[in-house]
Parts: sequence; structure tokens; C-alpha cells
Amino acid sequence: MRMYDIIHKKREGGELTQEELAFFVQGYTAGEIPDYQASALMMAVFFRGMTQRETAALTLEMARSGDTVDLSSIPGIKVDKHSTGGVGDKTSLILGPIAAACGAKIAKMSGRGLGHTGGTVDKLESIPGLRTDIPRDEFFEIVKRTGLSIIGQSGNLCPADKKLYALRDVTATVESLPLIASSIMSKKIAAGADAILLDVKVGSGAFMKTLEDSRALAQEMVGIGAGVGRKTVALITDMDMPLGRNIGNALEVMEACKVLQGGGDKRLRSLCMELAANMIYLAEQAPTMEKAREKAAQALTSGTAFEKLCQMVQAQGGDASYLREQEKFRLSPVCREVRMPESGFLTRLNAEECGLAAVELGAGRETKESAIDPDAGIVLMKNKGDYAEAGECIARLYADNEEKCARGAERFLNALSVGPEKPEIGPLLLERIEE
Amino acid sequence: MRMYDIIHKKREGGELTQEELAFFVQGYTAGEIPDYQASALMMAVFFRGMTQRETAALTLEMARSGDTVDLSSIPGIKVDKHSTGGVGDKTSLILGPIAAACGAKIAKMSGRGLGHTGGTVDKLESIPGLRTDIPRDEFFEIVKRTGLSIIGQSGNLCPADKKLYALRDVTATVESLPLIASSIMSKKIAAGADAILLDVKVGSGAFMKTLEDSRALAQEMVGIGAGVGRKTVALITDMDMPLGRNIGNALEVMEACKVLQGGGDKRLRSLCMELAANMIYLAEQAPTMEKAREKAAQALTSGTAFEKLCQMVQAQGGDASYLREQEKFRLSPVCREVRMPESGFLTRLNAEECGLAAVELGAGRETKESAIDPDAGIVLMKNKGDYAEAGECIARLYADNEEKCARGAERFLNALSVGPEKPEIGPLLLERIEE
Repeated sequence: MRMYDIIHKKREGGELTQEELAFFVQGYTAGEIPDYQASALMMAVFFRGMTQRETAALTLEMARSGDTVDLSSIPGIKVDKHSTGGVGDKTSLILGPIAAACGAKIAKMSGRGLGHTGGTVDKLESIPGLRTDIPRDEFFEIVKRTGLSIIGQSGNLCPADKKLYALRDVTATVESLPLIASSIMSKKIAAGADAILLDVKVGSGAFMKTLEDSRALAQEMVGIGAGVGRKTVALITDMDMPLGRNIGNALEVMEACKVLQGGGDKRLRSLCMELAANMIYLAEQAPTMEKAREKAAQALTSGTAFEKLCQMVQAQGGDASYLREQEKFRLSPVCREVRMPESGFLTRLNAEECGLAAVELGAGRETKESAIDPDAGIVLMKNKGDYAEAGECIARLYADNEEKCARGAERFLNALSVGPEKPEIGPLLLERIEE
Repeated sequence: MRMYDIIHKKREGGELTQEELAFFVQGYTAGEIPDYQASALMMAVFFRGMTQRETAALTLEMARSGDTVDLSSIPGIKVDKHSTGGVGDKTSLILGPIAAACGAKIAKMSGRGLGHTGGTVDKLESIPGLRTDIPRDEFFEIVKRTGLSIIGQSGNLCPADKKLYALRDVTATVESLPLIASSIMSKKIAAGADAILLDVKVGSGAFMKTLEDSRALAQEMVGIGAGVGRKTVALITDMDMPLGRNIGNALEVMEACKVLQGGGDKRLRSLCMELAANMIYLAEQAPTMEKAREKAAQALTSGTAFEKLCQMVQAQGGDASYLREQEKFRLSPVCREVRMPESGFLTRLNAEECGLAAVELGAGRETKESAIDPDAGIVLMKNKGDYAEAGECIARLYADNEEKCARGAERFLNALSVGPEKPEIGPLLLERIEE
């Protein structure tokens, strides 16, 4: 088999076989196939696409390219969840505890934030003492005991995907549906869960800007799940405005606690309830979605979900008293209020711009190497659709110095439009896709 | 400027500017832009194509990437000729002398053979003593004195093209019209001629298998010529059956001499006359194509064209007595006759297969590193369209041992089809394309 022939076949629109994709993924990971052939293939895939069979085969090969996590020692159905990334997206911190309180087993590896999107691992690490670099055995032990653990990616997971993504990033071949889908799914498959819940974001703050694109990505990923025998459900949800009221790491933990304690932003809560119900359903802890929703609501109102989060935090070495007494979190010392430029409705609050404002404040990363400030961020007093008088405070920005606050405020104002009429707020949950 | 943005722009179908193409070619030649970005761009060009303006700019940048030949010290209009490669194509050895005898100045750098196609430099080197590695000054001197010199490529001509072609060869991005056209034209432009005659071959022995493809390539190259201010004419000519009767290096020199002495294969002669007339016309040595054809015919019948070849050979250190007494050439010692398998017409004599048979005999190169046998090759007694009785000799194969002869004969028989009806032979000259 020759890499040349594989590139040529894809270039001419042919369907690559499982053997050809294995040859490519293994050879590329081992350094036997050079970058210049891989990038030519990636560009050919960009133009020619991949069939569902090809995408599933590519995903499996990438999942097998390094370590895989064997969760079989943990009894029950293990469910994983993935969000395509958003601004103010603290849902994992809420729905994980809800689903675990209802009997789902969640042994989750999460990522860190990059650019305008945050990452669950960064958020958790804002809790004093909490460790996310937990050895495999201890990780399994925590899940067995509490039903829930969220840690950072460890081990040599999907080296093929890592190498290929870095290449795609510099050769303008990222924006290809089968490649995006296989990259996400390979990591979820290597992480070992039996079922996968996907939260595919759409809108200004999301990777996919249109419903059409996000639906296509969701279908692609659900198709891969079916192709490799992992039950997969995708929800397409809105990410046009920030999710909830807080953006930033400690700030988002605080907001997650509020929701788990029965308060918090309504829109955020309703999304978490729907995601949690899907997770409960996937874990076969309820026979219908209706029953799953009931169970989720019960776990919230009874407080067992909040207790589940406290258990997990404690098990991972974190000080759970911060969750119960959120005023213990010390936000960054400099606070700046952003005021409404004129009276009216917030007709737009662009999620990506808000995320970039948070990066300016130090709450996010510009590059993978950047350090973050766990205590920086934004608290929205108003969100899209709300009315405010001229001069009224619409957001508080937190950073460790004035300069960052000034830059963050400038960026935040870019996110904003004000008008005389109340804008229409679209639905939060747009579609549910399963095989 | 970033290479990423250039790839992305082309991927999205944009037109690259002269500055962007210069950034790419210069950066790639200098090793600052990595192969993996170059191959991604080449694949994007494969799918998106290039405008005439882009192709001309790319060509000029590649021509400027290394040494360029300044022919301005040679008085008169310098004309170059390029063939896209064929089997038995010894036309340069014939039309060069004819055109030079009519006043055109030809300072030509030729290539070597590879695969089934031959190269003029290999053919010339079968003449004892003849040098093709002639220093620049002496090369100019010979052209000034005789009007004609054909040497091998020397100096660091078009390093960008060399590097890029090697990359395209292993990334399945060769078959792109603007890339093929710019590769050919960049070398011709760097070689310094004022006007360029292109012989674009079409058919089984050619790179382009259909008239449509060869016309597109011819138009692309003529467009580049116009775009960079070099008068360019392309003839599309048939390469479905071998050109003339001899395939092999010494054998082709012998056949060229025969044509220049007024004999030889009619089809070959008529092609050479038409190519030579175009060259004379491009060199402005005749006001019309009609006059140019008359001048070419006169140079042939008067013997001045043959004398011109002898002058050139002598000037380059070759023994011109071989041209006058062709029996001095010692062909390879083992000769095998191929006989007609059954009575009938030769309905097919596939040029590429004949070329590959010649490679088996030692007359051609399998790889750039292979050595060749200048005295091996094929003499066709019959060509496509001819009738022969069963057992009649249709070709003589020459090689230095029996084994090569046997392999060559086997391959040669693959080239052959016999039938009861005389096949139609298409025209040799299919189209003439100029701006």
C-alpha cells in the first residue's frame, strides 16, 4: 500500500477502505508518513468529504492510535458528555452531578479553555485544593464510590488526532465536517464511555455559526457513534448569547452551585435539566425521556445533585466549603462596571466577543501556553433581551489590574448593541438528533 | 503575510495576488515555508484552479527563483521549442537546423529521457565526442556563429519548480493544468528566449490523452506566454503511434539525418516542416506562415539545414562524419526481429507501450538515476495502418543482451493489435493555438 495512491483515490472522490485509513493513521502516528502527504490528503478530504463508513473507520483508528481507557471495572452504564465549546458554558458542572445523583456513571476527562471558549478543568481548578491530574486507579475508585469524577486528559490519548489536528491547524484544513467529527469522537471513544451525549452549540459564540452546519456536524457525530457501537445523542443548543450570567472560572463554579441549589439563570437551568435528562436516559436510569426529566428535577429540588458535586470535589481533594459558602471565593481585586451607553433593550450580546473580553481580563487563554487567572471574569447584570436605562450597570468585569479591565471593557462594548425594541430570543434547544 | 491565509484563500476559491504568490515561491524555495503547507496549497489549487493572471504570476516567480539566462548578447530573435514528450520524437534535431538555416537563433537547453519518453540531450550524446555540458560563454559563442546550439540544463534553473515538482510527484498534485503549464513555462522563461514554440502531444504516448486536455494545456501555456510578454504558439500534434520509424538514441539521430537529407518518414517530415515554419515565423524570418513554409522547404532541399546540424555537432565537439555516414553508428550487438502474429493491418501501435519496450531494451530510463544504452532501440518496419503478412518482420529490436531483447519483444507485442480492416489514421497536426 502506498500513501500516494490513498491521496490520489480520495482526490478523485473514491471511498477509502478501513485498511487504507488504518495504513494512513498508523503510518502517520509512527512518523513513517510525512506531514506533506498527510496535509495533501486532508485538503483532498476537505473538498471530497468522507462517507459515514470512512468517517467511522478513521475515528476508530485514531481512537486506537494510543492509550484507551477501559471503564469495564466500573459497574453500570458509563455516559460521557461533550460540548463543542461556548461562552459561559458551565453545564458539565451541573448536569454531571444531576445525572450521577440519578444513577448514571460519569468518568469524564475534560479539556482546558482556549480562545474565547472555556474548559471544565480550568473551572474546577479554581476550587482550592482540587486536583484534576488524578491517577487512573484513583479516578475509577472515585467514580465507583460517588458515581462522578471529572479530571484532565491524561496518558497518551489519541496521538494521531493530536498530531493531525496540529497539522490541520496550520494548513487550513480544520473546517471539514468528517475531520471535526472524527477528531471529537475519537477522543470520546478512547475515553471509554458506553454512551455519549453531545451538546452541539450554534451561533455567534460557537464553532458552527448556522443551524445547518451544526446539524450536519451533529448528524456526522451521531453517525460515527452508531458506526462504532456507542449510543450517541446530540442536542443542538443556542450559543448566540452567553450562557447564564457568569463568564470566568471561579465565577462559573459559583453560578453552577447556584443552579444546583435551585436558583440561578432560568435559561441555563433549563438547558442543564434537558442535558441531564438525556444523560439519565442514555444511562438507562429512566425508561422514557419524560421519566428522565422527572428524575432530574427531583435530584435538583431534593439537593442530592448538589451533594453529589460536593462529594466529587472532596474526593478530588478540593475544599467543598467553597461550594456551600460561595463568598469564600476571592474574585480578582480590580472591578470595573460597564454601563449602558443609552436607554433601551440589549438587542445583541455577541457570545464570542464576550468570551474574548474574558480573555483580555485574564480568564481565558490566547494560546495553549498562556496562564489564566482563575478569579477573573465577567458577571452580566443584563443579557440579550433585557432593558436598561442609560448609565445603568450591565456588567461587572474582574481582573488583577486596571489595564486588563480597560481592555476587557473595550472588547465587551463591541459585543453590545442597543435598540428601542425588545429583540426576539430564539429557543435554547433547537434540535435533538439520534440514530 | 502568512502562508495559512494564502492556503485558506485559495481553498475558498479566491484569486491570489502577485505578492502572495511571490511570498509563497520565495519562502518555499528558501525553506521557510514547510512542505506540508506547500502540498496543502497544491491540493487546493488542484480543486480550485488558477486564473490566467495567477498562473502567469506563479510562472514568473518560479522563473525568477534561480539563475536566468540572458541571451541579449546574441543578435536576432531567439526562439525556443518545447515538446510535452513523446515516443520517437526527434523533431528538435530536425527543425532546429531548418529554422537556424533560415535565420532563427536557437540557444536551446534540452532535457533527458525519463520513462517511455526520450530526451534530446541523450540523443545528441550518442554522437561520439559531442558535449552537452558546455559553459555559458561557449554556448553563446556557438549560437552567434552557427545560429544553433542544444545543450543540457545547467546552472540553478528554476529551483522553486524543481522542489515543487518533486513535492507534487509524491502528493498526487501533478495533474493540475495551471501547475503543469507553469512548471513547463517557468523553465522556458528562465532559459531566456524571446519566443516559444510548444509542441503539445496528444494520444496514447502523450501525457495528455485527449484532445480536450491537450487543448486546455496549450491554451494555458499560450496564456502564460502572453501574460509575461513572450510570444508563444502551440501546435497540438498526434502521439498515438510512434513518431517516425526509429525509437532509441543513435537510431533517432540517424533518422533525423535521413529527414534532413530529404528522405525519411513522410509523417515525421511533415510535422518537422510545420514546426520549423512556425519557428521561422516566430523568429520573424518570414512575414507569413506561407512564406515560412517555403523557406523551410528550401532549407531542406538545398541541404543547408543538414549542414547546420553538422556545424552544430562539430562546434560541440562531436564527430560530424557520423551524420554523413550513418553506417558508422554501431548499434547494440543483439538484434531480434518481431514478426507479424497473423496477416492483417496494424490497427494499433500504442506509443507508450513502444516507449516502454525501448526502456526494456536499455534505450530509456526507468528512474532519473538509470544509465542508458545509446545504441539500443527499435526500428519499425511497419507502423499503425500498414499491412503485413503473418510472419513478416514488423520491427527490429536492438539491445546488448538476449534477455533485454526478449523483455522488449514481449512488451512490444503488447503495443500491437492486428485486424482485417485498414484503420483510420487521424491527422498529425490537430490544432494551432496562439493569443
